[in-house]
Amino acid sequence: ASGIASAATTTIPAAAVKTAEQLRDQALHDDTAYKVTASLTTEVGARLPGSAADRRAVDWAVAKFKELGYDKVYTEPVSYPQWVRRSEHAAIVAPFPQPLTLTALGYSPATPKGGLSAEVVRFDSLDALKAADPAAVKGRIVYVDFRMERAKDGHGYGMGSAVRVAGPVLAAEKGAAGYLLRSAGTDAHERAPHTGVAGFRDPTKAIPAAALANPDADQLTRVLAYGKPVTLKLDLDCGVVGEYTGANVIGEITGRKHPNQVVAIGGHLDSWDLGTGAIDDAAGVAIAMAAGKLIRELPQRPDRTIRVIAFANEEMGLWGGRAYADKHAKDVAKFQLGTESDFGAGPIWRMSASVKPEARDAIGQIARVLEPVGVAYDASKPGGGGSDLSQMHAKGMAALSLTQDGTRYFDWHHTPNDTLDKIDPAELAQNVAVYAAFSYMAAQANGDFGSAPGAFAKDGAGE
Amino acid sequence: ASGIASAATTTIPAAAVKTAEQLRDQALHDDTAYKVTASLTTEVGARLPGSAADRRAVDWAVAKFKELGYDKVYTEPVSYPQWVRRSEHAAIVAPFPQPLTLTALGYSPATPKGGLSAEVVRFDSLDALKAADPAAVKGRIVYVDFRMERAKDGHGYGMGSAVRVAGPVLAAEKGAAGYLLRSAGTDAHERAPHTGVAGFRDPTKAIPAAALANPDADQLTRVLAYGKPVTLKLDLDCGVVGEYTGANVIGEITGRKHPNQVVAIGGHLDSWDLGTGAIDDAAGVAIAMAAGKLIRELPQRPDRTIRVIAFANEEMGLWGGRAYADKHAKDVAKFQLGTESDFGAGPIWRMSASVKPEARDAIGQIARVLEPVGVAYDASKPGGGGSDLSQMHAKGMAALSLTQDGTRYFDWHHTPNDTLDKIDPAELAQNVAVYAAFSYMAAQANGDFGSAPGAFAKDGAGE
Ligand SMILES: [Zn+2]
Ligand SMILES: [Zn+2]
Ligand SMILES: [Zn+2]
Ligand SMILES: [Zn+2]
Repeated sequence: ASGIASAATTTIPAAAVKTAEQLRDQALHDDTAYKVTASLTTEVGARLPGSAADRRAVDWAVAKFKELGYDKVYTEPVSYPQWVRRSEHAAIVAPFPQPLTLTALGYSPATPKGGLSAEVVRFDSLDALKAADPAAVKGRIVYVDFRMERAKDGHGYGMGSAVRVAGPVLAAEKGAAGYLLRSAGTDAHERAPHTGVAGFRDPTKAIPAAALANPDADQLTRVLAYGKPVTLKLDLDCGVVGEYTGANVIGEITGRKHPNQVVAIGGHLDSWDLGTGAIDDAAGVAIAMAAGKLIRELPQRPDRTIRVIAFANEEMGLWGGRAYADKHAKDVAKFQLGTESDFGAGPIWRMSASVKPEARDAIGQIARVLEPVGVAYDASKPGGGGSDLSQMHAKGMAALSLTQDGTRYFDWHHTPNDTLDKIDPAELAQNVAVYAAFSYMAAQANGDFGSAPGAFAKDGAGE
Repeated sequence: ASGIASAATTTIPAAAVKTAEQLRDQALHDDTAYKVTASLTTEVGARLPGSAADRRAVDWAVAKFKELGYDKVYTEPVSYPQWVRRSEHAAIVAPFPQPLTLTALGYSPATPKGGLSAEVVRFDSLDALKAADPAAVKGRIVYVDFRMERAKDGHGYGMGSAVRVAGPVLAAEKGAAGYLLRSAGTDAHERAPHTGVAGFRDPTKAIPAAALANPDADQLTRVLAYGKPVTLKLDLDCGVVGEYTGANVIGEITGRKHPNQVVAIGGHLDSWDLGTGAIDDAAGVAIAMAAGKLIRELPQRPDRTIRVIAFANEEMGLWGGRAYADKHAKDVAKFQLGTESDFGAGPIWRMSASVKPEARDAIGQIARVLEPVGVAYDASKPGGGGSDLSQMHAKGMAALSLTQDGTRYFDWHHTPNDTLDKIDPAELAQNVAVYAAFSYMAAQANGDFGSAPGAFAKDGAGE
């Protein structure tokens, strides 16, 4: 208003703020994201990276972007080791014979033909396993009985996922024959184990690894409490079968003034095989697709390009995100701002950002548009860009974190129960409102948010 | 008190009422039933009739009765067809290929080797299936998409179980190739199908029959709503493999004055194979065992015998209860009063009775002892005796109904989720309080409750 703005200060024009408010309010009453989520989870269902369903999901995404009117739709190849799950069974052999419900972890090798029988040794925590004498572990099945904590921001998954990712590697190093964990989940009563990736880097050193459903972990712990040696039998038929090339699928609303400058949003197209990947992450793909569609329906295209990316194989190690960042790192300065939705379908309640200091005011403008739908701006935290796009952020892309309410997310995450019925259409629509409004404002900004090679290396977002 | 009681009127002596009150209050602070439930579900786990675990459960029950100090422990043989479940898989083949989670129903035959593929035809209800033209059903997989209603008294299971028991028979009569139902359960979000028995009488006319988990039923219904023909593939390996002889296990606290007159209580020892049979029906067995144990610990034995029966194979058609009634029908007049616990571990909130008119006052005395722990006496309803003991009631045994709060029972009933963690120890103890108090009062009564051959044939309890 004063007309004496610094050349370096980024601002959002008043007209763009007003349009963003309209997009926000319109999104709250738009069911596109719910329909897209229903479409992906119904027509494709589960889509394990490298599976036939993964291929169908790529076709689905290309067709859906086109159906939603995106200007440009294309794919970029992503190669990764293909892991398959064929069957999985487990039982207590002694002292009280009975089956246990579990699921193999991603990259777990198979047990020997006929199964693996061994005595189980229990640890309360990853630290207890770290401290264990290898002699107590060697040849046994390690069982880490750690109960993950419920939290709105999902911080309990820090330790929960460490038990799943790092635990199997640690157990293997100490000579364990197999590895079990109490599922990294916050449900207490469901016989629905939580899968997820194990951190094996060297396949020759990997051991069979699986997660027990929470009630089965309770049961194993009860049986161990009798004080007798407990023998388990694991029968996992799974493993890496080769290399596969899938694809990131990308849809764009082409910028009118700066087509080569992009606001990058997205989700990941793959899912684990147990559920239909509704909250993880059909919802994220749908939120971004629906946000882009709303912007496309404006009277004219935004100044910069809105790029929606449906990433390949996030689940087994950010393969899609890493491939994307490797390919586009040289263009990082053209990425205006970005973030990915990959924490379910609960409402966004917090925003934080990693941007150049001169763009803080613009972030404040975005925050004021998002505040009426329940989003609080936390200026003290960095913005990490989400799961796959964290890799572009690591290259220097300015990024937001749009934190969803994850209170119930880890009840269903990576389980058979990740299905469409867990999604509240109104909460999903709130996400679209946030993505549409921020994306549009970033696209219309006078100036950039500071993306540059290595720009945010020390913001702490990766910690 | 007046000393002018009619010879025909049954009353409970004041001293017995006082002792019953003490038993009741003591039971509320006794964890025997919880420990017994934990013991059965941990040491034996699931115990499908005729399985190796069923045999272990019989040994467990004999040992547990002895450990609890019962005066007499014995078994009575029960023979029945042995049905086994080996594996079960299903998938939508077209138009959207994907797996479905289901479980075979008891007495379902196997599908042909390689599976059964057929088009699915959906019905809203059992009545809609009844009304269907056989030409619309012949050679197809019938799917009855009926959603069972939640209710404190569990009345929704009337129609829910009819869809499971009668539906497969009706579909088979119309020439269906297979049968699916939306699980007879009140959970909406769990990928945990509800098994249970199908009503096939003639094995040569049985067809493969299974229950879909509720989210899978949602998914199949969504896929059908696209309006394209939907082909399913069922691959069930299960069936009747022969005849098996198991056992009812019986423990008695021997009556001091009238050892041959018995108060009969119990539960069923068998369970479905998916969960560990905690609420169905380890809890019932434990409630009765714990009630008898508390009575045994009194300074002297009760006047009449307390007989606790752990029935064999209730699940596949009251085999234990029918064998018991056939064997003991001639002695029905010696059964003072009886009822069985088989509706989970929720608190008892209602009592009703089928007794001779001259015993109504004694029932009123029992009701006054139970009222402080939340039990309301409904004099307008009959007492059915519970599941297996309904068969002795049908022979003429005076019986109670002690109705538990079943609001959540059908969330877990006959699913993998029927595990110990669903039981609240305090609620379980309330059940023991009721069983101990009523059993003791019935054992001490001056007079009987009207048991006689055919005595209650028209009380409506079986309807
Ligand atoms: Zn994800
Ligand atoms: Zn995930
Ligand atoms: Zn039962
Ligand atoms: Zn049952």
